[in-house]
Amino acid sequence: MTGIHRTPEKNLMVFSGRAYPALAEEIADNLGTSLVPSQNYAFANSEIYVRFDESVRGCDAFVIQSHTAPVNEWIMEHLIMVDALKRASAKRITVVLPFYGYARQDKKHRGREPISARLMADLFKTAGADRLMAVDLHTAQIQGFFDGPVDHLMALPILADYVKEKYGHEQLAVVSPDAGRIKVAEYWSNRLGGVPLAFIHKTRDITRPNQSMAKRVVGEVEGRTCVLVDDMIDSGGTICQAADALMADGARSVVIAATHAIFSDPAVDRLRESVAREVIVTNTLPISEEARALDKVTELSIAPLISRAIREVFEDGSVTSMFDGRA
Amino acid sequence: MTGIHRTPEKNLMVFSGRAYPALAEEIADNLGTSLVPSQNYAFANSEIYVRFDESVRGCDAFVIQSHTAPVNEWIMEHLIMVDALKRASAKRITVVLPFYGYARQDKKHRGREPISARLMADLFKTAGADRLMAVDLHTAQIQGFFDGPVDHLMALPILADYVKEKYGHEQLAVVSPDAGRIKVAEYWSNRLGGVPLAFIHKTRDITRPNQSMAKRVVGEVEGRTCVLVDDMIDSGGTICQAADALMADGARSVVIAATHAIFSDPAVDRLRESVAREVIVTNTLPISEEARALDKVTELSIAPLISRAIREVFEDGSVTSMFDGRA
Amino acid sequence: MTGIHRTPEKNLMVFSGRAYPALAEEIADNLGTSLVPSQNYAFANSEIYVRFDESVRGCDAFVIQSHTAPVNEWIMEHLIMVDALKRASAKRITVVLPFYGYARQDKKHRGREPISARLMADLFKTAGADRLMAVDLHTAQIQGFFDGPVDHLMALPILADYVKEKYGHEQLAVVSPDAGRIKVAEYWSNRLGGVPLAFIHKTRDITRPNQSMAKRVVGEVEGRTCVLVDDMIDSGGTICQAADALMADGARSVVIAATHAIFSDPAVDRLRESVAREVIVTNTLPISEEARALDKVTELSIAPLISRAIREVFEDGSVTSMFDGRA
Amino acid sequence: MTGIHRTPEKNLMVFSGRAYPALAEEIADNLGTSLVPSQNYAFANSEIYVRFDESVRGCDAFVIQSHTAPVNEWIMEHLIMVDALKRASAKRITVVLPFYGYARQDKKHRGREPISARLMADLFKTAGADRLMAVDLHTAQIQGFFDGPVDHLMALPILADYVKEKYGHEQLAVVSPDAGRIKVAEYWSNRLGGVPLAFIHKTRDITRPNQSMAKRVVGEVEGRTCVLVDDMIDSGGTICQAADALMADGARSVVIAATHAIFSDPAVDRLRESVAREVIVTNTLPISEEARALDKVTELSIAPLISRAIREVFEDGSVTSMFDGRA
Amino acid sequence: MTGIHRTPEKNLMVFSGRAYPALAEEIADNLGTSLVPSQNYAFANSEIYVRFDESVRGCDAFVIQSHTAPVNEWIMEHLIMVDALKRASAKRITVVLPFYGYARQDKKHRGREPISARLMADLFKTAGADRLMAVDLHTAQIQGFFDGPVDHLMALPILADYVKEKYGHEQLAVVSPDAGRIKVAEYWSNRLGGVPLAFIHKTRDITRPNQSMAKRVVGEVEGRTCVLVDDMIDSGGTICQAADALMADGARSVVIAATHAIFSDPAVDRLRESVAREVIVTNTLPISEEARALDKVTELSIAPLISRAIREVFEDGSVTSMFDGRA
Amino acid sequence: MTGIHRTPEKNLMVFSGRAYPALAEEIADNLGTSLVPSQNYAFANSEIYVRFDESVRGCDAFVIQSHTAPVNEWIMEHLIMVDALKRASAKRITVVLPFYGYARQDKKHRGREPISARLMADLFKTAGADRLMAVDLHTAQIQGFFDGPVDHLMALPILADYVKEKYGHEQLAVVSPDAGRIKVAEYWSNRLGGVPLAFIHKTRDITRPNQSMAKRVVGEVEGRTCVLVDDMIDSGGTICQAADALMADGARSVVIAATHAIFSDPAVDRLRESVAREVIVTNTLPISEEARALDKVTELSIAPLISRAIREVFEDGSVTSMFDGRA
Repeated sequence: MTGIHRTPEKNLMVFSGRAYPALAEEIADNLGTSLVPSQNYAFANSEIYVRFDESVRGCDAFVIQSHTAPVNEWIMEHLIMVDALKRASAKRITVVLPFYGYARQDKKHRGREPISARLMADLFKTAGADRLMAVDLHTAQIQGFFDGPVDHLMALPILADYVKEKYGHEQLAVVSPDAGRIKVAEYWSNRLGGVPLAFIHKTRDITRPNQSMAKRVVGEVEGRTCVLVDDMIDSGGTICQAADALMADGARSVVIAATHAIFSDPAVDRLRESVAREVIVTNTLPISEEARALDKVTELSIAPLISRAIREVFEDGSVTSMFDGRA
Repeated sequence: MTGIHRTPEKNLMVFSGRAYPALAEEIADNLGTSLVPSQNYAFANSEIYVRFDESVRGCDAFVIQSHTAPVNEWIMEHLIMVDALKRASAKRITVVLPFYGYARQDKKHRGREPISARLMADLFKTAGADRLMAVDLHTAQIQGFFDGPVDHLMALPILADYVKEKYGHEQLAVVSPDAGRIKVAEYWSNRLGGVPLAFIHKTRDITRPNQSMAKRVVGEVEGRTCVLVDDMIDSGGTICQAADALMADGARSVVIAATHAIFSDPAVDRLRESVAREVIVTNTLPISEEARALDKVTELSIAPLISRAIREVFEDGSVTSMFDGRA
Repeated sequence: MTGIHRTPEKNLMVFSGRAYPALAEEIADNLGTSLVPSQNYAFANSEIYVRFDESVRGCDAFVIQSHTAPVNEWIMEHLIMVDALKRASAKRITVVLPFYGYARQDKKHRGREPISARLMADLFKTAGADRLMAVDLHTAQIQGFFDGPVDHLMALPILADYVKEKYGHEQLAVVSPDAGRIKVAEYWSNRLGGVPLAFIHKTRDITRPNQSMAKRVVGEVEGRTCVLVDDMIDSGGTICQAADALMADGARSVVIAATHAIFSDPAVDRLRESVAREVIVTNTLPISEEARALDKVTELSIAPLISRAIREVFEDGSVTSMFDGRA
Repeated sequence: MTGIHRTPEKNLMVFSGRAYPALAEEIADNLGTSLVPSQNYAFANSEIYVRFDESVRGCDAFVIQSHTAPVNEWIMEHLIMVDALKRASAKRITVVLPFYGYARQDKKHRGREPISARLMADLFKTAGADRLMAVDLHTAQIQGFFDGPVDHLMALPILADYVKEKYGHEQLAVVSPDAGRIKVAEYWSNRLGGVPLAFIHKTRDITRPNQSMAKRVVGEVEGRTCVLVDDMIDSGGTICQAADALMADGARSVVIAATHAIFSDPAVDRLRESVAREVIVTNTLPISEEARALDKVTELSIAPLISRAIREVFEDGSVTSMFDGRA
Repeated sequence: MTGIHRTPEKNLMVFSGRAYPALAEEIADNLGTSLVPSQNYAFANSEIYVRFDESVRGCDAFVIQSHTAPVNEWIMEHLIMVDALKRASAKRITVVLPFYGYARQDKKHRGREPISARLMADLFKTAGADRLMAVDLHTAQIQGFFDGPVDHLMALPILADYVKEKYGHEQLAVVSPDAGRIKVAEYWSNRLGGVPLAFIHKTRDITRPNQSMAKRVVGEVEGRTCVLVDDMIDSGGTICQAADALMADGARSVVIAATHAIFSDPAVDRLRESVAREVIVTNTLPISEEARALDKVTELSIAPLISRAIREVFEDGSVTSMFDGRA
Repeated sequence: MTGIHRTPEKNLMVFSGRAYPALAEEIADNLGTSLVPSQNYAFANSEIYVRFDESVRGCDAFVIQSHTAPVNEWIMEHLIMVDALKRASAKRITVVLPFYGYARQDKKHRGREPISARLMADLFKTAGADRLMAVDLHTAQIQGFFDGPVDHLMALPILADYVKEKYGHEQLAVVSPDAGRIKVAEYWSNRLGGVPLAFIHKTRDITRPNQSMAKRVVGEVEGRTCVLVDDMIDSGGTICQAADALMADGARSVVIAATHAIFSDPAVDRLRESVAREVIVTNTLPISEEARALDKVTELSIAPLISRAIREVFEDGSVTSMFDGRA
């Protein structure tokens, strides 16, 4: 038959934007490779320029960017990197999102709002993404926003095992700071062996109309070490008030656990002054020196999880089997 | 300038599949028109045939089908109707889904599952749908599965106003039968003026490993009339067990309210024997004679809501303003 | 150069829906593998659930479903399986359709009809199909409905070789039961070495206006063994009346040959009572016990054809060369 | 409400490429308008340039081009006109194809062939076509190649009514020159009141292996005026041989009727020397002076049919009702 | 015929992001309307939120955002506004870009670069834009990056008429600061009545290898008032060096004219110290107080041009005829 | 794990249309293979037919066609070949365009024009092209018209090295025949070591209104050997007039260099009579015997460049590194 025959080769290459290179380096290091060197910078008028220093033709590209503030800056860089990879003939492009920006705008809460989380999925598709990999999406439905495979990794085992080892001998309760997120608390409860569940219910006090919402604890927390769990800590208001409400309701102590440490201002101040005994987070987002300086903040690395998942994707292994059947 | 000038005209036409024509007729009647006559039937080998009896060229089409069992039959008929409308030059096609089939498969609960709710949105898009209109989607994120406008109508005011009028003088509590759906209960709580909230937590009893899950009420329900709320009642197992658990916990009585009365077998038997005092549903799905024969089942019509929304869409009015800012 | 290098591996996996697993098993067996185990079932409200029991990441997937009644049920299952494979990172998805549902609605016979055969092609594309493989499409133009490669397999050699061996020594004529399908009869005529051709022409008898159409044989059949050929036998009315007309016109005997044995009710009764000497079909569709019980029904297996084609597709061989240059 | 309100206006504009402006002018004239003036020409290196002389913003554009030879030239001009209309903000673009080029390549006759008829539909879609209008597609399935509405017009009533009036008093038979197109002959037969049907079957004479195919008439034609019908006459070989075969079989005379007069060389010579008594065609394609000079060629205008259809599309009337329920 | 008939109405609505509301207000004011009020703000973690305060259903939306620094912030807001409009059922969405961000990255200058200008066009398409309107794109080819109509407005008449009136009595030369943009200078030359043309050629001085590029004036400028023209002034380095080179070559004086006043740091300092007599720009981008304080900076308003174009688009008039046949 | 495992193989296959097979053969020969044999011909009515003689399943296809006159013919053949490859299951399709037809219509020069260069990119995408490879696009922005990777090869090194070797000892100037293409001349200037630059400016002589444009040389050319550079020579008018203007301005001699030798009539006559000393072109387009007969025409082969690029693409090497960082 006419033609030239070869056995193909596949090549895994890891790329990082400027949002949080330390995490990407840790992931590449775990994989036994290094980040592909590139020129990423902003012009005087703030437009971003990207160029890779090596040929990427035919590679299996994993492009890591965590959407920390300024979110729009880093998402745009992420998109531009994907465009450059597509036009440079990368064979497959997996967008790795340790933290997925705009995940909270996953529906129209009211009329005439955007659904920004869907928009982001579409923007990445348009730029050239073949697949997404993300950690603890705000709602699991976001998987369905992308038209293609999504590897959804769970930080829960990392966080929960830490809690179990450190606090497992105490009387525990798992608490959700919001009615809408009790499902996550339920996973925690199962992982910790069936401990009781509670949540904070915000109500308007009808007798004092101009007051803000009251926080009411629904469920039994008295005398217990409450593990207050959420997917993210943004400015920390909700979670710190929840901790207060728990203590007011007779909790013995409060431990906060969350995957994404956004820590927008004034989160650090709030956490410093909070009644919480420990605040356990992962490094899906870069954590400021100021936050790290707090004794109560414990940072667990997400890099081993992501690097194992990348390896499985590259080698066509099963991500599901790795992650408790929940990917 | 060359050409022939005209003032255009727009024409609203309402279509129905065979799943539940009575509801579609009620909607058309409310609008002051009638359903477009058509030939819809199945061939001997079960393939569906559709043909409209009137010209639909240039019309603003609203195609109503409620995805009752056999779900796949009616979804396929719905898709085929949209295809026929597209090819017959309808100007705009709005798919009206009083009940959206496969809404519960809105994410991968485990690896290697489909996301059927997204698939359905894509299938309708492919067939030619420009817009969707749906009532009480299982999760609001499903709006983001469709690439285009979605009018999301809420049955909550209809159900809640009925409950308020009938039970508002009693001591109420709003209860969610599942940790994952407390958010909906919270809306109810607000609508009913800030009544307490509770939910049912399923736990595994560690001491009896082979037993099924225990139901534990989280929140205060003693002496209260519990309004047990959900988006749908399928075979009724969860909700009836929840009602039992509430009574066991000292509730005064239980009233069940849900938008979608799927009532799969053995729902009718379970409801008949249930401790629930009343079961309030809407007619987004056809309700069997057997179910209707139960005194405790109250059916409220969704047709006024849908017909008002269709009129607003046709006349470019605001759907949001009609529905409490939540469309 | 940066990165991790590997030689890739490709993996053929065969999947089956619940419509007709016996055929899929025979195909997998011919290939020397087995079907990928999966969970396929319907919920109480008739929604279908699918989950694969093994990792399918990176596989070359062949998803077999024959669209037998209830057609819509099995098409929807087929689509959902494709969606699940896409989201689970299958590398390439070939939809295998021993019988392609809705193939007869391949054009608008009248205004305001759908073109369901095109719609099906688009639905599979949307769900994630990269390629189609089908046996004896109702019209070859359906290949053009799919935006991608279609392997169109022909059962003609299997059927015709059987007829040649068994009846080749008799005086044959090939007859089409319908004016629109004489082209297929012409292929048969060539394959059988140039035997005469005839067809049945339906005419309205002007002198008896309220009578149904008369069947007129066009072509010479007197004294000949007529091979009455078609792509499918649905409820059997047309083909049995054609057989009667042939006998009335002096045919020596009639043998019926068709690829797809739909056998909708009352096909079995009609075939039992028919003048036809033998009815030769393949197993692209499951054949009921009742039909199998008829001595005159002969069932030839299509599995060797499909399994050879799958192997060629997997190994980048030529399907065309295998099938007489007609794929 | 904020904004500026207006009643919209719609404007029908008719455009023509250079392939056959006389037909387009006749259509525009029937509609009571004139063609939009434009610059259409080829550069020295044969690239085509197009520019419209008037604003087309917001218009309902009908772009007429008949795909006569050189086919590729005129298709490309057609595509470029559509692109220019799209970029100049035409509101809706209907591509009018009195003759659809490449319609005969509507399937893979053998492996590794294109499906050019589908490709053409996709090219027009890509350029910006919203709708197609075509006359007598080679196979009706081509409607399904376009992803949008197709108005399929039939010349049959024009041709058949002429035949009926002129030859209705003679003993008629309708004959298809090819086994694959008897369906069209069947429509003719019905339109002419149920006259007998025949077709020409090409067979290889086994006893004379190096000879070309023999033509055998299947059906009764003796003593009859045979109306030999086809969708198109290309180089005329098939149809003239068919006429010879009919005369050899005892036909009284032969009248040829076809919609599309391609008349590729040496069609005119063949028709001149043919036994056919009359050759009736429409002007979907330009007919050379040489062909027109033949007394036996009768040309009927298709313009009234197309202009009526354009008006119905513009005014949202029914095309189906106009054309015997067969659009 | 079944249905409800109405005469439609169309409604022009103008929207603005937060990048430069003053320009949008001036445009709305010229049109005789006001901006649609909306909630646009950033959350603590820098994610943007958008909601319109009025119903936008069925409107003809013009969404204005000028891509000033921080560019990525404003582009993302622009995209999110388009998404919200699409999901709120705007009928048509025109994205108005007084300055189109990333226009300079309109090709791969070297391998492994993105083509960000194409990416932006695709992102707006994905978000839901039907049309674009832009002023003086960096290269006209960018029109071809968008899959749909682009109205390309030219500021040249505004700038050139000002120059003609003020400097027309002097001996003029038009100069391009860069070899790649002489075409624009040629348009200026024609508009000013055929004045001579020159450009600045950057060359490497071979005898002094480590020196930067020398600027050489190509063309006659001695004794002339040089109109140094460009589409934009970014940090001002190139244009100020060009002015110096012209003066060194004997120019009488230098006047700078450019559409887009990006004025990135240190543009204001450079212009202040430049030999240029006047710097004429439009307000497609907001100009800082510091820049406005320079006597030599003259700002002409682009709002009349954009508002006229919007009105023509809304009323289906001709934009081309307004703008010298160059749109 | 279930399934059949193999190591895949990749196979490079080279295809050519009928426009210019000699170049394609030279490329295949350089690669060490031969063109895939195929049936490419036109039917009587000028429709094109294509069929490949060998299986192409799974191949890495490079389809070469140079868009020489008749351009539309060859573009359509090119599209049809791509369609046939897609439907025959080629794994990846790279369209190789030594000369890209319609590249000059890369923007709307005036309103209501097409952007044919974008249209061509979209047509190839629609037909099934995964990638493009082109030589010296008229403007580099055309890369951005294709939604996928474009390998943009530069003939500059081939042409410039020839000029340097033959004329490097003379006093050179590089001249652009048009203001819009000086950028290319600047690349030449750099490649030749920094030689002076000039261009031809066309002006209207106001005193003689009915005369054509005057050509004015801008820049110093006196006594120099002028290398007049362009991307293409079409009918030769512009370039020959430019040569005259240079000689009139005192140039010592003129050498013309261009990548694409379109040579439309009367280019050969003009070049024969031109003052130009030598005309250096590549063979991206077939050159007529008449042109080759001119002593002053020098033809350099582009085949080595294209064949090296194809090999790199096939083997995932870097095309950028080969071509001076400018691909």
